[in-house]
Amino acid sequence: MAMSNTPVKPPLRTTLPNAREFPRFAGISTFCRFPLIDTVPSEQQPVDWALYGIPYDGGVTYRPGARFGPRAVRDASQYIKPVHLEHGANIAQVFSLADAGDSPVKPYSCKETLDAACEFAKTIGQPSHTKLLAVGGDHSTAYANIRATWERRGKPKGGLAMIHFDAHLDTAGPIWGESWTHASPFKHAIEEGLIDPKRMVSIGIRGPLNTADDLQYAHVHGIQIVTYEDCTTDAGISRIDDFLERIGPDETYLTFDIDCIDPAFAPGTGTPCCGGFSTAEAFDLLRLCAGANLVGADVVEVLPDRDPAGITALAAAHVMFEILALAAVSSGLNDES
Amino acid sequence: MAMSNTPVKPPLRTTLPNAREFPRFAGISTFCRFPLIDTVPSEQQPVDWALYGIPYDGGVTYRPGARFGPRAVRDASQYIKPVHLEHGANIAQVFSLADAGDSPVKPYSCKETLDAACEFAKTIGQPSHTKLLAVGGDHSTAYANIRATWERRGKPKGGLAMIHFDAHLDTAGPIWGESWTHASPFKHAIEEGLIDPKRMVSIGIRGPLNTADDLQYAHVHGIQIVTYEDCTTDAGISRIDDFLERIGPDETYLTFDIDCIDPAFAPGTGTPCCGGFSTAEAFDLLRLCAGANLVGADVVEVLPDRDPAGITALAAAHVMFEILALAAVSSGLNDES
Amino acid sequence: MAMSNTPVKPPLRTTLPNAREFPRFAGISTFCRFPLIDTVPSEQQPVDWALYGIPYDGGVTYRPGARFGPRAVRDASQYIKPVHLEHGANIAQVFSLADAGDSPVKPYSCKETLDAACEFAKTIGQPSHTKLLAVGGDHSTAYANIRATWERRGKPKGGLAMIHFDAHLDTAGPIWGESWTHASPFKHAIEEGLIDPKRMVSIGIRGPLNTADDLQYAHVHGIQIVTYEDCTTDAGISRIDDFLERIGPDETYLTFDIDCIDPAFAPGTGTPCCGGFSTAEAFDLLRLCAGANLVGADVVEVLPDRDPAGITALAAAHVMFEILALAAVSSGLNDES
Amino acid sequence: MAMSNTPVKPPLRTTLPNAREFPRFAGISTFCRFPLIDTVPSEQQPVDWALYGIPYDGGVTYRPGARFGPRAVRDASQYIKPVHLEHGANIAQVFSLADAGDSPVKPYSCKETLDAACEFAKTIGQPSHTKLLAVGGDHSTAYANIRATWERRGKPKGGLAMIHFDAHLDTAGPIWGESWTHASPFKHAIEEGLIDPKRMVSIGIRGPLNTADDLQYAHVHGIQIVTYEDCTTDAGISRIDDFLERIGPDETYLTFDIDCIDPAFAPGTGTPCCGGFSTAEAFDLLRLCAGANLVGADVVEVLPDRDPAGITALAAAHVMFEILALAAVSSGLNDES
Amino acid sequence: MAMSNTPVKPPLRTTLPNAREFPRFAGISTFCRFPLIDTVPSEQQPVDWALYGIPYDGGVTYRPGARFGPRAVRDASQYIKPVHLEHGANIAQVFSLADAGDSPVKPYSCKETLDAACEFAKTIGQPSHTKLLAVGGDHSTAYANIRATWERRGKPKGGLAMIHFDAHLDTAGPIWGESWTHASPFKHAIEEGLIDPKRMVSIGIRGPLNTADDLQYAHVHGIQIVTYEDCTTDAGISRIDDFLERIGPDETYLTFDIDCIDPAFAPGTGTPCCGGFSTAEAFDLLRLCAGANLVGADVVEVLPDRDPAGITALAAAHVMFEILALAAVSSGLNDES
Amino acid sequence: MAMSNTPVKPPLRTTLPNAREFPRFAGISTFCRFPLIDTVPSEQQPVDWALYGIPYDGGVTYRPGARFGPRAVRDASQYIKPVHLEHGANIAQVFSLADAGDSPVKPYSCKETLDAACEFAKTIGQPSHTKLLAVGGDHSTAYANIRATWERRGKPKGGLAMIHFDAHLDTAGPIWGESWTHASPFKHAIEEGLIDPKRMVSIGIRGPLNTADDLQYAHVHGIQIVTYEDCTTDAGISRIDDFLERIGPDETYLTFDIDCIDPAFAPGTGTPCCGGFSTAEAFDLLRLCAGANLVGADVVEVLPDRDPAGITALAAAHVMFEILALAAVSSGLNDES
Repeated sequence: MAMSNTPVKPPLRTTLPNAREFPRFAGISTFCRFPLIDTVPSEQQPVDWALYGIPYDGGVTYRPGARFGPRAVRDASQYIKPVHLEHGANIAQVFSLADAGDSPVKPYSCKETLDAACEFAKTIGQPSHTKLLAVGGDHSTAYANIRATWERRGKPKGGLAMIHFDAHLDTAGPIWGESWTHASPFKHAIEEGLIDPKRMVSIGIRGPLNTADDLQYAHVHGIQIVTYEDCTTDAGISRIDDFLERIGPDETYLTFDIDCIDPAFAPGTGTPCCGGFSTAEAFDLLRLCAGANLVGADVVEVLPDRDPAGITALAAAHVMFEILALAAVSSGLNDES
Repeated sequence: MAMSNTPVKPPLRTTLPNAREFPRFAGISTFCRFPLIDTVPSEQQPVDWALYGIPYDGGVTYRPGARFGPRAVRDASQYIKPVHLEHGANIAQVFSLADAGDSPVKPYSCKETLDAACEFAKTIGQPSHTKLLAVGGDHSTAYANIRATWERRGKPKGGLAMIHFDAHLDTAGPIWGESWTHASPFKHAIEEGLIDPKRMVSIGIRGPLNTADDLQYAHVHGIQIVTYEDCTTDAGISRIDDFLERIGPDETYLTFDIDCIDPAFAPGTGTPCCGGFSTAEAFDLLRLCAGANLVGADVVEVLPDRDPAGITALAAAHVMFEILALAAVSSGLNDES
Repeated sequence: MAMSNTPVKPPLRTTLPNAREFPRFAGISTFCRFPLIDTVPSEQQPVDWALYGIPYDGGVTYRPGARFGPRAVRDASQYIKPVHLEHGANIAQVFSLADAGDSPVKPYSCKETLDAACEFAKTIGQPSHTKLLAVGGDHSTAYANIRATWERRGKPKGGLAMIHFDAHLDTAGPIWGESWTHASPFKHAIEEGLIDPKRMVSIGIRGPLNTADDLQYAHVHGIQIVTYEDCTTDAGISRIDDFLERIGPDETYLTFDIDCIDPAFAPGTGTPCCGGFSTAEAFDLLRLCAGANLVGADVVEVLPDRDPAGITALAAAHVMFEILALAAVSSGLNDES
Repeated sequence: MAMSNTPVKPPLRTTLPNAREFPRFAGISTFCRFPLIDTVPSEQQPVDWALYGIPYDGGVTYRPGARFGPRAVRDASQYIKPVHLEHGANIAQVFSLADAGDSPVKPYSCKETLDAACEFAKTIGQPSHTKLLAVGGDHSTAYANIRATWERRGKPKGGLAMIHFDAHLDTAGPIWGESWTHASPFKHAIEEGLIDPKRMVSIGIRGPLNTADDLQYAHVHGIQIVTYEDCTTDAGISRIDDFLERIGPDETYLTFDIDCIDPAFAPGTGTPCCGGFSTAEAFDLLRLCAGANLVGADVVEVLPDRDPAGITALAAAHVMFEILALAAVSSGLNDES
Repeated sequence: MAMSNTPVKPPLRTTLPNAREFPRFAGISTFCRFPLIDTVPSEQQPVDWALYGIPYDGGVTYRPGARFGPRAVRDASQYIKPVHLEHGANIAQVFSLADAGDSPVKPYSCKETLDAACEFAKTIGQPSHTKLLAVGGDHSTAYANIRATWERRGKPKGGLAMIHFDAHLDTAGPIWGESWTHASPFKHAIEEGLIDPKRMVSIGIRGPLNTADDLQYAHVHGIQIVTYEDCTTDAGISRIDDFLERIGPDETYLTFDIDCIDPAFAPGTGTPCCGGFSTAEAFDLLRLCAGANLVGADVVEVLPDRDPAGITALAAAHVMFEILALAAVSSGLNDES
Repeated sequence: MAMSNTPVKPPLRTTLPNAREFPRFAGISTFCRFPLIDTVPSEQQPVDWALYGIPYDGGVTYRPGARFGPRAVRDASQYIKPVHLEHGANIAQVFSLADAGDSPVKPYSCKETLDAACEFAKTIGQPSHTKLLAVGGDHSTAYANIRATWERRGKPKGGLAMIHFDAHLDTAGPIWGESWTHASPFKHAIEEGLIDPKRMVSIGIRGPLNTADDLQYAHVHGIQIVTYEDCTTDAGISRIDDFLERIGPDETYLTFDIDCIDPAFAPGTGTPCCGGFSTAEAFDLLRLCAGANLVGADVVEVLPDRDPAGITALAAAHVMFEILALAAVSSGLNDES
């Protein structure tokens, strides 16, 4: 329990409605009750992290519906509070935070949606400063936020480092004649130099697979795979630690597919796969990444129509919070936040 | 079918996102995709009708949860379009419309909530011009909007006329020691002179009742009761017509408890009662009220946790639309809109 | 609206918890909050109508689960109040009412269950006085209550008259080698002389049928069939009126299969069939039976696991109430209540 | 009740599993338990009507998921029996019926899907004889079945007559840059001469509309619109009768969007609109079409993820049955069946 | 596996219906099928543990509905059997057990409800002997049972020791102007001397928190906090062991908020928080408490409307069983049971 | 991660539809998209493993509905792919696999159903070669598949070894007068010599129990019990390892009751018991059995009506896959596959 010696609080950098006056069940839903970006007061400018939705699910290969993900996550996130007990950090003190609304989408074209979302994302807040956390939508949408992040960071040669939580590898080639799908975002990002496969780790991968070839892309390009099964051993955890040490302060993007979590904890997703992380295990792995220099992130594949008790959207809201807390505890360690 | 000779369109008075560019499943949810009231452009000022939520359910006698009603209705209303086919009216052309957010509430006190909500409501838009459509919350919240409306209309002596859709009479005395409940809003409104019981009609009342005394208040004060069973006969409909003729252009408030609709169409409510209106029948009765001079309205008792397919919130969104369309078709007939 | 001239109230014959003191969501669930039969005070003896459950679903031909029907109907019936607005009758004033618990069942044998339930039913309350309303369970259980009723009434020669609400005829022969099923209760009751097919009407029958032969039994034995489609015409309603006139004050049993109601209003049932009555239409037809001399009744085929919003159990609770109200308004017209 | 004088039965033309031996809850699900088309015995060749699915929902403008419609309708149709009580017809006696499986789809392209589905459909059974009933998928898929039907009927000049049940007109132009959507199938079919707008009726249309212009296409091309509201009047019903008389024995296609039915009866659909038909009312209107010379049909827009009690898929299964029964009763009146 | 050497059984002290004769799905629902307290035979008097409900949720700060918790837990507990495999104890042999029904509540006042529930609780069974297990209701209701227990134990100076399972601390000050809420029961109990904060442990606490100040009350008063994260380490478990050793045979109260369990296992609660215990982990921690001298307990915050598969109420029923089994195995070690 | 050195692929022995051409949401549902057994091409004959359903739930003691299990598992299994990541095996390369449809059942008699299912099972594929994986249905159905397997293997004296995953022992005597129930399959199989209790292990057993006697049958007959609690310790796992070593290459049957998995992961089952395995833990235990010589298997007790998010059927589909993968990795080690 890390909170006992909390120092004197600096003033909040994010204005949240006081829940002990204005209840969490009241008001227009924004991510975590953060202000809409147009309403952030000047003394809280520039915004440090902006959250926005990409309500698109046309890239799926199985069950659609993640276009309603951002709306569901906004509603579920009303109960997210700002202080991270385990990290001992108040994200609203460390950061100016805002909800930037939803990107435009082109529901009948994956590529056009990604272009439109990327263009939108590139202009949010103060591009050279504000970091972006996108909420999907299906995993194809991650490409848009990765590209926008890479461009906003000055198009670093060699691309960004990448921490990838997922049950699936998402480096597939064309499916049904289309190369832009929710199974391919990292293939595109790698081929365009936005991320560096040699500094990419995919955590939580599990079977069954279509063919043994599914792993080839990762092997050829040097993506490190830490399967779910690996994560149940000390050796597997060490490999994540080694990876984190290896990337050090490099600019890093974190992508979180909710289906890395087990369907008991996250039934509301399009391609659920039994035998995954509990939310507690996922949070532990995320907390392990403290120190990483996060410059962008996403949480994707929340499908509310398969989420009768709302626990998937709630898990996604918690993951958003974990990512922001991760950035908060890392912000002292890395230069620019 | 009333639309074939639609005249040349005047410019829209409400700016809606173009759904053929920005999809209905995208963006921050506001009622019917109307603008937040703070963002209405000056040329659309003053706002004609403002919609707002009162997220309170502490007045219920059975099942709570309607505090989440405004949020659910906002989401469901994303698919409401502006043109009323049967009336031949485009509400966005006739009116400047806006979402004013949610009122403050005091979850542990019905009376304090009503006071806080009423104070909030009194200041929305341009008080002497803007009319208010409140979304509950339980039926106790209607009192707040009735009082705010009455005050904004200049506290007319004799009170407002009232069209009341409900399965229940809601004129009860204290329950469990409390006089302010969802069973009592009209008793208070009548006793404070806000509404005139002799110009009040309660439509859709049905059994079972607690005691035969439940009807006494209405009989003593002259409230006209048109039961569900009455509405299945021509004579019953005539009594509504006569009522409407009698109130003529009087300033009129319309309160719509979603439980006047049958649980098959509106399961998500706190005190459901089998044997009620279909939505089509309810819409017909609402359309019958064309010509009434509506100066305020509410839609209450939507309980999302009992609404697994979301049809109750959708029905409430349609009722909101019917009320606004009613006001739109009546606005030529009455003076001030 | 029948209530305006309600005369001075006699003392209540059934002691209900005062809902304005002890809420309807509190306490052990009994049917309509009636007392458990063992706790009825002596001044309310003998009980006039006893309600009991038969939690058996082993007779079904499609979807099981109605064994949980009695429990679900008890819970849903907590919101049933005693005064029937349309009939103008307070069932708690007219009758001493009680919940007699559930009968024994033999889950692996339909015939043994019916025998056990019938033996139990024969001893409830004061057999020569107390009338029985059974809650299923699948429709096979009706046989047990019919037989118990017939025996308690002194085994009248010629059997009882029968009013039967259902989508199905339930006069089938053996299925999968078993003659006792939920498709056959009336075949057995007729063949054993418990009911008189010539004074039996089946209301609400609708297709599709397995074969045209399904109607043969009814035609051969003289059961009057009034299909759902018939009920949409004045001629069909007249046939019900004629039937009621024909049976006059004869001892009559009423059996109500919830699937006569449309799946929109009663999804939670084992063999749902689209295109049936609304609850309002069903209540109207029940109210048409005022004057019938009811000596026993049942409500069957509620399957809670297919009833996500709870509206089927609620509809069944209302049907129970309508039946008791029917008995109450008829009790002045017929001798013995 | 039409069945009492049923004549001697001819041998069945469709082999159904005997439900009194092999239960309806057992076995691989095919539409209405009809045989897979590859297993139809030679003496039942050629198949008269083949049912097949088009599992595609990429044409939607709001909520996706209808790709799972065919599977859900197959499951729900297990309880459909062959004898139509009200028409007095046994579809399995009149017709040889089969399930032809699902068409190929191209999930990322509406036009490619329609082409692939149409190519598939053109080869089902004996093209010059077998008629097709397609189960969607979203309404865009209707185009594929209409084109296949038109081609199989010899590409009749002037196109087919059309009976269209829907809440929406589905004659829209491009949306989000795409002209092939679920809002446009009839625009394409008309422009390609597959259907004749002057012999087309759209039944059940209701608001709200996007703009008054939505009706222009119908007005300009001569499509007859009978709104839901029209259907509540004798005059409206007469207009349908007149239409049917006008088309007489012309080859006619029937398209049924499940959203013409009210959300209480059919919540599981992508763009639900309150205030529509009950299933009973829809069946009545379908039965009114007895005599039409149906040469093809579809049932579309079933979205299982929004159908918690399964009643929408059940309603769709009943509509399939009504359509086949309609064809059965008409087959004596028209030449070629 | 502890059962192999079970000694000769003493006679049962609690009469349970024989499930191999009277099925678990039959009959009026009482907690674990225990007898209603008024029906316990004299030879089983005095009752050792009485279970009762407090159907109140007016103290919540987010989602209401726990007023229906006792009813849901009664239903779910029908499948609880009396023998604890892991402890090797039959609770029905060790204890006379009963269901005492629900307490009165005052739905519009938290304080009045707590007073009424406490008054009721004080009189259950034989006050100096019978111990109480209350089922909420929201966590505010725990206060009533704590006070009743403390008074029945003779108002011990220094108060009771306390084992507290929860995600939240529940020692908050006033919210929305009200000091009696579900966030404050222990603050009141401590301030009134009912429990001793220095002998209190809170197990399962996890973030996020509103402010870092949330922990201050615990730190100032000496409440031991063992967070969820602590419980994943041997050191954390040792701290619980040390606590138990420290309190030894002191009279101890156990309060169990179902939200200490992860939402995957207990979605039906008002303020769910991802990343908590599995039920298996929670049971392990409860079993660790064997030896504690339990004199009272509660299980709270079950919200059936958010529990679509019923697993939360089932988990609560198991927790009740674990608590009774804990008392059973401890009863030999401590004096008075 | 076992896949990196995958050798050159042999040709597939099972023809699966190419999901990158024919989507997983399309087509008639068969188990894992395997071909119907009648359509397996000759070059893939004889079939190695055939999957079939036994849609029967008449043996349950609590909640029925598992008759719909096979259909739900077929649908859920559409997303099962053939390559097992952790084992490094492609089941479609190792085995010819097929769906043999559903067995006949006699819904009103457990014993007759088991006889009919066994007769059916005995004839599937090539009896001396094809192995059977049955999908229930309740656990009584396991008996039918065990007997068929035993007979097809030449009625080995001494019976088969047995690996049994379950929360319950299922060796009970008569219940409600019936000896054939879902609580008794192994009692019958042992008494008839089909399985050898001394080479039987029951994994995952947990309380509560009806009486301490429940364990007697296992103790007397030498069944090894490894409780859930045992499985949380290294010693417990060692006992499973020892068991597996002891049975070595003996012909072994594996029965998997889905209720060995915790209700959070498998809510859709008839007698759920909190505190069980996660799916990941269950898969680990199954993978531990690599090397066992499986000659038959079943997965039972999936109850779709209690599975609102479909995760139970999905878990069962994964278990089927794990069993087939287990057989695939073992097939090199044991003689005959």
